[in-house]
Amino acid sequence: MCRWAAYRGEPLFIEELVSSPAHSLIEQSVCATRAKTSTNADGFGLAWYGDRPQPGRFRDVLPAWSDCNLKSIAHQISTPLFLAHVRAATHGATRRDNCHPFVHDTWSFMHNGQIDHFERLRRTMEQRLDDAHFGARYGSTDSELMFLLAMQFGMKERPLEAMAEVIGYVEKLSLDMIGSARVRFTAAFSDGKSLYAVRYSTDAFAPTLYAGPMGLDGGYCLVSEPLTDDSEAWVEIPAGSAVILSDDGLNVANFGPLQPDETKPALEMAV
Amino acid sequence: MCRWAAYRGEPLFIEELVSSPAHSLIEQSVCATRAKTSTNADGFGLAWYGDRPQPGRFRDVLPAWSDCNLKSIAHQISTPLFLAHVRAATHGATRRDNCHPFVHDTWSFMHNGQIDHFERLRRTMEQRLDDAHFGARYGSTDSELMFLLAMQFGMKERPLEAMAEVIGYVEKLSLDMIGSARVRFTAAFSDGKSLYAVRYSTDAFAPTLYAGPMGLDGGYCLVSEPLTDDSEAWVEIPAGSAVILSDDGLNVANFGPLQPDETKPALEMAV
Amino acid sequence: MCRWAAYRGEPLFIEELVSSPAHSLIEQSVCATRAKTSTNADGFGLAWYGDRPQPGRFRDVLPAWSDCNLKSIAHQISTPLFLAHVRAATHGATRRDNCHPFVHDTWSFMHNGQIDHFERLRRTMEQRLDDAHFGARYGSTDSELMFLLAMQFGMKERPLEAMAEVIGYVEKLSLDMIGSARVRFTAAFSDGKSLYAVRYSTDAFAPTLYAGPMGLDGGYCLVSEPLTDDSEAWVEIPAGSAVILSDDGLNVANFGPLQPDETKPALEMAV
Amino acid sequence: MCRWAAYRGEPLFIEELVSSPAHSLIEQSVCATRAKTSTNADGFGLAWYGDRPQPGRFRDVLPAWSDCNLKSIAHQISTPLFLAHVRAATHGATRRDNCHPFVHDTWSFMHNGQIDHFERLRRTMEQRLDDAHFGARYGSTDSELMFLLAMQFGMKERPLEAMAEVIGYVEKLSLDMIGSARVRFTAAFSDGKSLYAVRYSTDAFAPTLYAGPMGLDGGYCLVSEPLTDDSEAWVEIPAGSAVILSDDGLNVANFGPLQPDETKPALEMAV
Repeated sequence: MCRWAAYRGEPLFIEELVSSPAHSLIEQSVCATRAKTSTNADGFGLAWYGDRPQPGRFRDVLPAWSDCNLKSIAHQISTPLFLAHVRAATHGATRRDNCHPFVHDTWSFMHNGQIDHFERLRRTMEQRLDDAHFGARYGSTDSELMFLLAMQFGMKERPLEAMAEVIGYVEKLSLDMIGSARVRFTAAFSDGKSLYAVRYSTDAFAPTLYAGPMGLDGGYCLVSEPLTDDSEAWVEIPAGSAVILSDDGLNVANFGPLQPDETKPALEMAV
Repeated sequence: MCRWAAYRGEPLFIEELVSSPAHSLIEQSVCATRAKTSTNADGFGLAWYGDRPQPGRFRDVLPAWSDCNLKSIAHQISTPLFLAHVRAATHGATRRDNCHPFVHDTWSFMHNGQIDHFERLRRTMEQRLDDAHFGARYGSTDSELMFLLAMQFGMKERPLEAMAEVIGYVEKLSLDMIGSARVRFTAAFSDGKSLYAVRYSTDAFAPTLYAGPMGLDGGYCLVSEPLTDDSEAWVEIPAGSAVILSDDGLNVANFGPLQPDETKPALEMAV
Repeated sequence: MCRWAAYRGEPLFIEELVSSPAHSLIEQSVCATRAKTSTNADGFGLAWYGDRPQPGRFRDVLPAWSDCNLKSIAHQISTPLFLAHVRAATHGATRRDNCHPFVHDTWSFMHNGQIDHFERLRRTMEQRLDDAHFGARYGSTDSELMFLLAMQFGMKERPLEAMAEVIGYVEKLSLDMIGSARVRFTAAFSDGKSLYAVRYSTDAFAPTLYAGPMGLDGGYCLVSEPLTDDSEAWVEIPAGSAVILSDDGLNVANFGPLQPDETKPALEMAV
Repeated sequence: MCRWAAYRGEPLFIEELVSSPAHSLIEQSVCATRAKTSTNADGFGLAWYGDRPQPGRFRDVLPAWSDCNLKSIAHQISTPLFLAHVRAATHGATRRDNCHPFVHDTWSFMHNGQIDHFERLRRTMEQRLDDAHFGARYGSTDSELMFLLAMQFGMKERPLEAMAEVIGYVEKLSLDMIGSARVRFTAAFSDGKSLYAVRYSTDAFAPTLYAGPMGLDGGYCLVSEPLTDDSEAWVEIPAGSAVILSDDGLNVANFGPLQPDETKPALEMAV
């Protein structure tokens, strides 16, 4: 399992999440207290939005705690919207192409979780990609593949529905091919305007997701694990939920798998 | 020999020097037309100034042309003052600590050239460092060592004099220890406000230095080799000169070695 | 284009090809005199046979000339059969998984050349892989894909025919999908007992291949470019040929594309 | 703290210590059960003796568990004497030059432990090096520096005395400069013929050291932590001891600090 943190609000130095807090992402890379895998040393990554619609991205394969570039970049760059990730490899070798966040056009995506039996499902899932999205697959992780499928299923127009359809597609495929299915999926993604996060699992053990205020002026942080011990500052998002941070503030919606061919509206806003 | 480019002016995307021009720094890393060493594949680095007095820095050991992080960061970051460097190793192994630019406090520094017989001079030069600057030495290059000596000699108050004193000190040390001396030195350095460059050699073969206008609004670029074939756009800076880019525009001064213990003013402005 | 060297004979230190000769592979990585691309700085690799049927392998993405591990390993390891490669990327990012030699079971393979329009052919070629060989694809190069297809087509039983069938398959696929075809292919491969090399191109410009004696006791070296200026020591292998080094010495055979479904014997021994 | 394992005996595949046992070195890099630092992800290294008097060496900065080169090399190479190390950085950045084992001429050395206040002692210790050994210092660790001092103090002729003198020198220097001293030091070193290990601390908490038989024919393994749960197979070496593996089998001697200028014999064999 991996650890991640994302922010949307007034410009904030990236290090305010990545290296400064008591349980900063770098601290969590050494010792995550609520994660299945206690060390997240298989690389890290940042995606941040600035003067262009596309995000900048920086990824590398060293443990986050020892990378001097990460420390300097996180210290130097101030941005209103960013995603940060430390990786403990489940699927895919330790190489830059397998480090989160993944970026496609103006979208960025990162993920904690996994698809059971992915090695047996991978080939069929890749064949589901159309040529344009197949050509955008650089690594070998389940995470990148789910992101590209979501882009193909319409992420630009209806991000949460597209993501719900990917999960529905994978669960059905696994049932058909393997006879059982389990997708554990806590992810954040953004188009540079809004920031989305999802917490879901086929079973009762969805990877954790928390939200908390950050910064002086109405910003929010979404994290796989709280960054501080101040338990009142962090709200646990229940499994089966999506969080939307936008100019309308923070909203939470129900979230569950959909079938890609479904055409009816996918989500009702819960708040 | 290495290749480098520096900019001061209105905010500019780093890629405008590093990857976009016909003879961008990345192109030069593959094939520099005026350099002694035709390939500069031993790493690269960036230092840029933004919202803090200290620069951000990003360095790595891969060839510049193949580093996806460099491409994304240069594409994403817009800054009014930056230094960029591609390295062909002369002294010091290929590792991040030996990649330019070097940073100390608010200052950044990068260099093309070399000290003859550096391996025999290195130990005495390092002993010349006081404890504070010795503790700031992370790599093994002559370039970093000259930069730290310059900081120690007073770079903050009188940057060109301090640099001239380092060269004078090294030439005298080499004469004393070896019986001959040659320092080839074309360097750029900055405190985040002004941008300085120097072209000097003990002999008649100082590494090249050019200046040219860049951007829409009075910005300038200083480079070891022109970034475009437009020969009218680039002015060759003569050997024995320093260039100062500040709020007063571009100024050129004579530059030559000084002894560290000299106290009289070192440079007369030539323009 | 890449550069490579392979050896079969009495045990020889790997450095005898990789770093010691006047035009050693490391020298060629800096400046290849007969190659299209003059710098081969996008990684390197070794595969060598020793006490096990499977080869050992060492690959990395730094330029060969600056990698201290490569120097030490090539200096230390003595082996009767090895393949060594320096890479200039044509297809596939600079990462270890894309560095030659590729290894599958007891076989090793390395390649200089390319498939025209590979980006358009890649997906169909990957779908041609059966599940077992698809699961063994870690990188994104045309070279690895041709190797895996050859394994699938029967490389263990009839290595040259299987390789000829891969080329025939790719040429036909390209004609069908693109309307034209060009495969330039100079490769070496081994099962740890015999050493094979092939020189072929659809057009008249097959990448070069040379053979020369090496070592004291009847060993041979196969190289993409001679390792010394001693022109009498190196024999150029003509295009459309295969070389087989085995306990029977050095043999040369005609080599040309075959269709995978052909069943008649593919090659007549020419010597 | 780091973890290490060394072997001397009949040729053994390196993986028999590095990746195969229940608590192999790679497993320990993920989770060391008796170490102060639970993760050792700041690089690894091997030194092994073969057909030459000098050892081969392979070091890299990735976590040991994810390095495909390490797996292949450890699987392929069979050797009668080798040292293997996984690193958790205490002093010195994460870079290859700081990864153990260190090699000088025919000698190799690796270490678990640290010198208190090393940052304040480092400069004086480096000045104690003569020019030849100063020129052989590539990294910035206390470990490499102690090894080079031991070489200078006569490691070739009397390895344990030279190492004892380094510890005595450092303790005295620290007392003189700081007013207190603590050196924790569990190390292994070899000239390619014998294998030595030392367990020592100024205080009562010397890092652990164990010995156990390995292989079929009288080989021994020295480790910082047992490689298996078979507690009867491993003997804990007491603090204040040296172990010597040679053609005379396994011997244990008392070990304690000496002053470099002392001339009397340093060690009495205890067994």
